[in-house]
Formats: sequence, structure tokens, C-alpha cells
Amino acid sequence: MALVVQKFGGSSVANAERIKRVARRAVECFREGNQVVVVVSAMGDTTDELLNLMKQITLDPDPREQDMLLSTGEQISIALLAMAIQAEGVAAISLTGPQAGIRTDNVFNKARIKKVLTQRIREELANNKIVVVAGFQGLNEDGEITTLGRGGSDTTAVALAAALKADVCEIFTDVDGVYTADPRVVPQAKKLADISYDEMLELASLGAVVLQPRAVEFAKNYDVPIHVRSSFNHEPGTIVRRESTMEKERVVSGIAHDLNVAKIAIFDVPDRPGVARTLFQLLAEQNVNVDMIIQSATRNDTNDISFTCAHDDLSRALAAVEQACSLLGAKGYTYDEDVAKVSIVGAGMVSNPGVAAKMFEALAEEGINIEMIATSEIKISCIIRASDVKLAVLALHNKFQLEKP
Amino acid sequence: MALVVQKFGGSSVANAERIKRVARRAVECFREGNQVVVVVSAMGDTTDELLNLMKQITLDPDPREQDMLLSTGEQISIALLAMAIQAEGVAAISLTGPQAGIRTDNVFNKARIKKVLTQRIREELANNKIVVVAGFQGLNEDGEITTLGRGGSDTTAVALAAALKADVCEIFTDVDGVYTADPRVVPQAKKLADISYDEMLELASLGAVVLQPRAVEFAKNYDVPIHVRSSFNHEPGTIVRRESTMEKERVVSGIAHDLNVAKIAIFDVPDRPGVARTLFQLLAEQNVNVDMIIQSATRNDTNDISFTCAHDDLSRALAAVEQACSLLGAKGYTYDEDVAKVSIVGAGMVSNPGVAAKMFEALAEEGINIEMIATSEIKISCIIRASDVKLAVLALHNKFQLEKP
Repeated sequence: MALVVQKFGGSSVANAERIKRVARRAVECFREGNQVVVVVSAMGDTTDELLNLMKQITLDPDPREQDMLLSTGEQISIALLAMAIQAEGVAAISLTGPQAGIRTDNVFNKARIKKVLTQRIREELANNKIVVVAGFQGLNEDGEITTLGRGGSDTTAVALAAALKADVCEIFTDVDGVYTADPRVVPQAKKLADISYDEMLELASLGAVVLQPRAVEFAKNYDVPIHVRSSFNHEPGTIVRRESTMEKERVVSGIAHDLNVAKIAIFDVPDRPGVARTLFQLLAEQNVNVDMIIQSATRNDTNDISFTCAHDDLSRALAAVEQACSLLGAKGYTYDEDVAKVSIVGAGMVSNPGVAAKMFEALAEEGINIEMIATSEIKISCIIRASDVKLAVLALHNKFQLEKP
Repeated sequence: MALVVQKFGGSSVANAERIKRVARRAVECFREGNQVVVVVSAMGDTTDELLNLMKQITLDPDPREQDMLLSTGEQISIALLAMAIQAEGVAAISLTGPQAGIRTDNVFNKARIKKVLTQRIREELANNKIVVVAGFQGLNEDGEITTLGRGGSDTTAVALAAALKADVCEIFTDVDGVYTADPRVVPQAKKLADISYDEMLELASLGAVVLQPRAVEFAKNYDVPIHVRSSFNHEPGTIVRRESTMEKERVVSGIAHDLNVAKIAIFDVPDRPGVARTLFQLLAEQNVNVDMIIQSATRNDTNDISFTCAHDDLSRALAAVEQACSLLGAKGYTYDEDVAKVSIVGAGMVSNPGVAAKMFEALAEEGINIEMIATSEIKISCIIRASDVKLAVLALHNKFQLEKP
């Protein structure tokens, strides 16, 4: 008997028919002799509808109240899914994040899971029930409802799988698995049978929106295998796990792209110790997730510092930058929302010289200008014009011959 | 400084504009120097939409899961209302029923409030916040979310007012107050300046849907004055309170009618002790709220027993009756959904003979057949054909000259 955590996203539970299908899938797994915990997101557009409603009330919502509002979306899903499972003849119980023992820190809207108290879930599993848990939400130390931010349901699923020592965490999506590139951009993109946590982490951070990065981090830290698969069929998807023999033979596993990028450049920052700390502390205080950071070589005792963040974070980032400029005596700043990030990811990259050159060559051949470059051991990212992104992904996919088996 | 509990129903918070209006009303009261607790229902048709969604999943929902589902409606309202109040520049915090300390029994869907732990609310009031509480919901002993049943938000408001020893509980509705009859049926109906708990209780039970009976009971037990008033204007409405000088001069205060009535008759029940207990215990086990009960005079050692309940309870009532018939050896039963109840209510009735005769006369003059009669000290109710109800209410309003000041 295995313990399986299944996670279904918003589109998988968008209406009553789909909820019934999810119920049948969970029941199937249960009837194969497994203990089953199902984590679900809010139905379809519920979260967006709630946010729209909120925007009619205020453009500057109290984060606590926003979490109070948004957490209702998943609560609706879990109640309906538990009912649908019961209608299939299997005992089931729904638990909100707080009831399921998800404990978080105090950062509303973007809370991080601190621990999972598994007693209640274990009791319900022991009672032969399928346990349906609300993703995306938890309880902080003050007993307040928190949410984990967009895509937090993946994190809930992996955290539960880790805490319950589940055999596998199945993440059901509307795609078949992880591809070498977004199939909507590259029709020849291939499904990967497996991928390492680190590669997935880079792909996830880089806008291949199959899995939330935090969920992959969690899975990596607790060594939880994730099976990314389709909710529409029973085909195997992609296994994300610690080690994979395949990946070592691959130099580049996939091409990721991200249009949700804004670039901010600060000019003539005095070159003295503590400058970067001041800037990025102010950004952290505004809860801005900074992605790429570039500091130019010193010239006339000043530096230029550029960084990227998500569009959502831009206004808060600019507030921090404004403050930093006056504190540091920088000359000024510019920002640009019309950029995109394209990246190549592969665990084999580190031992294969010339990968970066090959990437830049592919982009140059298409006449695409590179505005920023960042590298890690397993990925190389370039900031380019947003309008060039499709061309860039196709060129890179082609250059690294990812369409070949 | 007074402590005011305000309650707004679903139509008062049906959209963002209306939520803002409720916020302004609460802020107005706060700025007049009062401590303010606002209780709200789910927005407009939210509850019905959730129930419709549920019916697409199952027609036999687990009551626990139903409460998990329905309690989201009020949670959405409180978060949005708290934001709207904050946008008006006053500190506010939303609390779910469980967070607000509402503790109930274990009957899902129809829970009763057992106690209110007021510490959290008092703390937030002391912090100079308007406290926004979700009506209709609470927490049972097992830590499960329960709902109080339709209209339970009134009960929440009154229970909070009682527990907090509030100076007044204002119930805002889409009507101006309590009328001598439903103004949609009787255009000449007059608004009452005040009314006693008992009269209100009878009017509420009898289908004058301004206040939930349980809420009035609560108010009566804890001597909480209720001000029923319009959310659309600032006119004084109707005060429901312990004693009223006015009412003693009135023989009949109002005419109530209720179309949500089903009649069940059981024939030839053996005449022996314990028969009624068996029947009504079975009905209680099915959670059927029985209203009128009539037992005919004994004939051939058997009785006929008739009773009425709400349409919603009919199928459960019939299940209980079926069982009772075979247990008791009754001959059979019939039921009729096409009936209505019309009642006259007045605290002065007990000391004025001839009121019943005058009521029956009014109905007879219109050729309306009376199918059941029930009386209490302050009301007389008749079951008639549903199609006669409008005619009956008009005739009674006229007969008792309620249009006169």
C-alpha cells in the first residue's frame, strides 16, 4: 500500500463535471489499494473573480483581508470534491489548510510553510478516507489564515507529501509533462521522461510554468519524487527526482522563456561597500522577488546596477529604488516592462564547454539583441526584447537539437 | 459611547457598490463615537449559486461538507467589507464565525449557538477597530465549521449583541421595518414603531420574513433591543423590545402569511399513550421543524393527527411518517403542499374576546375554507388553500382596520 498525494490545479476543477472526473481519478487510485491525499486549487477563474471583486473595493488591500478573501476559493473546491468522492462510494473528508495542519510564517499573500502537523490527516487516512486538502493556504502563529501566493497549491502538495513521507506526489496539469520547450511556441518540443530537481527548479523559476519553484525546492530538500502528469489521460508524464541517468547525457534539457519580466537599471551608484546591501534590503522590505542582478564594472567611481523582477512587483520595486537612489546618491534609474527572459537549462552544461557561445550564436543568427546575461551551473539566461521571445526559443530549440529523441 | 451591533443581509452586500455603502454606514456609526461590530451574510445570490453547484455534484450532500462549502459565502463578504471600511480610513478586521468565538452544537446545516467567546472581538474593539463578523457560521466542539441554517446571520448578530452586552442590535433589511402586513400584498399596510418580542416571534415564525425566529428568541432571552431598519435610508424602523406601551392598545398588531407550508395528515392512529411521542420523535430525528399540530377527537379508538412543516422538510417528514405509520399501525397518510398559513398576531388579543370569531368571519365573508386552526395567547393561525392567501390577508387587514394610524 502506497501513500499518494495528488494535486489538481484550478482548470482540473473548473466545473462540476471536471470535479467529478478528479473524484473518479482519486477513487481509482484509492481502489488500487493506496492511501490518497488530494490537494486542490480554487475552481477555474475563482481566484481571478475574487481579485476583480476586490479591485472594485480597493486597489490597496490589507494583505490579511486579501488572504481571508482568497482562501475561500480552495474551500469551495475541497467541499465539492469531497462530496463528489463520497458520491462515488468512497468515504472522504475535506480539510482547509489550517485544519490540515499547514503552519506558515506571518507574511500574508506570500506565506511560507514552516511545518505540517499531520495528526489529523493521519487519523482520517486511518479511517479509510480520502483526505481532500485545500492548497495555497495555511495558518500563521497568530491563528490567522494565510495564503502561499499564486501556485501555492503545488507547495502544499509537496509539503504534505514530505511530511507524510508519501511515496509519490502526483501533480496533475493540463499538459502531459515537462517539455523541452513550451509546445505552444515550439511544436516539435519533446516530453522529458525525467528531470532533476535542479533542472526543474531552473525551468520553473524561468517561466516554464509547470511547477512552482518553491514546490520543487521543497521536494528537493525532502527528496519527494514528483510525477507531473496530465489530468486528461493516464499516460506517464515526467518524473522530477534526485538523480536521473538520462540527464547526464543531455547537455541542454530544455528552453524556458518568461514574459513576466521587468528590468530596472540604476545609474551612477557610488562605488563603496554596502551599496548593494542597501538597495536589495529595501527591495526585500517591499517583498520584491529579485531575479537577475547585474553590476557593471566600475567607471569614475560609480557603478550601474540592473536587476529584473516580475511585473507584479514592479511598482513596489520602483518605490524601493526611488528611496535607494536618494539614500545612495545615485544619478537616476530607468525601467522597462517590455522585456523577456529566455534560458537554456541542463545539468550536463557544467561539464560541456562552449554551451554559452552556442546560445549567443543562435540568438545572433536571428539578429536578436541580448540586454542582460546571467548564468548558473545549469542554466544560461538572456534578457531580450519581449517581441523577440518566440523567435529566440525556436532558434535555441533548433540549435540544441532538442526535437531529436 | 455605545456598543452597536449592525447586521446587513445578502442583498445589502450584493455587489461592490453596496458593500461600500454598508462600509460608509458602519463608519458613520463609528464616527458618532460608537464601538461597532458588523455582521454580514453572503453576497446576494452566493449561497444559492453554491447550492446550485453542489446539486450538480450530488443531491445528497454530506452535511459537514455542505457547511464547509456554504461558510465560504460569508467569508468573502467579511473580507471585502473590512477592506471597504479600511478604504474609508477606519481600522477594521474581519473575523470568521469560528474566529469571532461563535461556538455551536454539532448539528451541521442547522447548528445552534451554544456560547460566544468574546475575547477576540473585545480586543479588536479596544484597538479602535470596526469588527466585521461572518454571520451564519460557527465552530462545533470537534473544531468543525458549522452553519446556522438560512437566516442564521440574524441569530449571529443578536447572539453577539447579547454576549457583548451591546446597547442595540440594528438589523438592516430591504424593508423599512415591521409592517401590519406584507406591503406587497396589502398596499395600505402601516409600519409599526415598536413591537414586543413575542409578537415579533409570532410574526417571524409565521412567515413575515423580517427576522429569524431564533434571533428574536435569543433577543428576548437576553433582553437585546433590536432595531429593524432600512439599509437604503436613515429613517427609524421598528424597535423590537421587551415592553411596549403601544401594543397594549392594539388588539391585533399584524397579519402574517406563509406560503412555505406543507400539511401532512395521518389517519386512524390507535388511541394509546406514547403515540404522539413516537411520531414526533421520529420527526425530530429527521430534523424536521414541525409547526402546527392538530389531533382530532377520538373515534373508534383511533385519532387523526395532522401537522405542518416547511416545504424543505417535507421529504424527510414523509420518511418519518412512513416509519411511524408502520410502527404505530396507522391506516395511512396524505400530504398537501398547496396550502398556506395566515395568522393574526397581537399581544392585546388575550384580553379581548371575540377576536377569533372576527377572524373567521372575515375569511367566511370571502368564501375561504379553513383547513386547520391553531391558537396561542397572542396569535391565531389558519391553514387555507395557497391560492386564497392574498385575499385572506387583505380581508383580515381590512377587518381589523390596521390601515388606521
